[in-house]
Amino acid sequence: MTNCTFCDIIAGHAPATIIYEDDTAIAFMDIKPINPGHLLIIPRTHATYLSDMDEATGAPLFAIAMRLAAAVRRSGLRCEGVDLFLADGEAAGQEVFHVHLHVIPRFRGDGFGFRFGPEYRVRSRSELDEAGARIQAALNRGAEVQGGRGTKE
Amino acid sequence: MTNCTFCDIIAGHAPATIIYEDDTAIAFMDIKPINPGHLLIIPRTHATYLSDMDEATGAPLFAIAMRLAAAVRRSGLRCEGVDLFLADGEAAGQEVFHVHLHVIPRFRGDGFGFRFGPEYRVRSRSELDEAGARIQAALNRGAEVQGGRGTKE
Repeated sequence: MTNCTFCDIIAGHAPATIIYEDDTAIAFMDIKPINPGHLLIIPRTHATYLSDMDEATGAPLFAIAMRLAAAVRRSGLRCEGVDLFLADGEAAGQEVFHVHLHVIPRFRGDGFGFRFGPEYRVRSRSELDEAGARIQAALNRGAEVQGGRGTKE
Repeated sequence: MTNCTFCDIIAGHAPATIIYEDDTAIAFMDIKPINPGHLLIIPRTHATYLSDMDEATGAPLFAIAMRLAAAVRRSGLRCEGVDLFLADGEAAGQEVFHVHLHVIPRFRGDGFGFRFGPEYRVRSRSELDEAGARIQAALNRGAEVQGGRGTKE
């Protein structure tokens, strides 16, 4: 056993209802589903946060999510829509510290939804541009170092 | 102008604060951010739902989200974590009917969160296995037809 429940599932040392696996990823049922059919997709190699995983490992998780979302829709389980969700960091709601992408079947009246903070409102173009300029600058700084880290596509 | 706001943004016919673009995708600031720095990543080619987009177009959206999440974290905007979110279908909360992946900066006390339905609880292994078997069967049916649709990786 490790100190990571998801690594224990991958190793076959903890129980899980596994739905899909390949060389780099595995998908299994969430033990506390928002609705029946709620799945998690995780990388086989432990990555605590998104920043611990390279894009070549991350991108296929989304492709698998697309495939599983389609499967849930035609499974016969109640599913009128699907949410994909990933929480990166405790402040974002992450509870298990091994990257996991949720595939959540949704239907009208299921009771799931968001509550929003007091600042949730349409913003002016200047506010959006100001935030955008900061992100753009950070993105450009990242692009400069990416070659060296080998994470550029 | 089209009847799709996001296609209008791609065409340059509607205003947006664009942060990233490449041959297949574009990212811009959400006009109604959950927190400042909230971004959307969309495919250039119109796709109403996930099922209208092939995996080769979808997977890079996640790679871009990883890059933008890292950029938001080092942008100086308040960001202690990041949520990635995609709503597929009106019942899942989709409001603009062109596939879009949200990148949402999060911080403690931002007031954003989930409300859960009455059925949200840990499930027995037999319940998980039953739901899993339905999805597995649907996934296998999908694999049989995927070759013909050319969506298999």
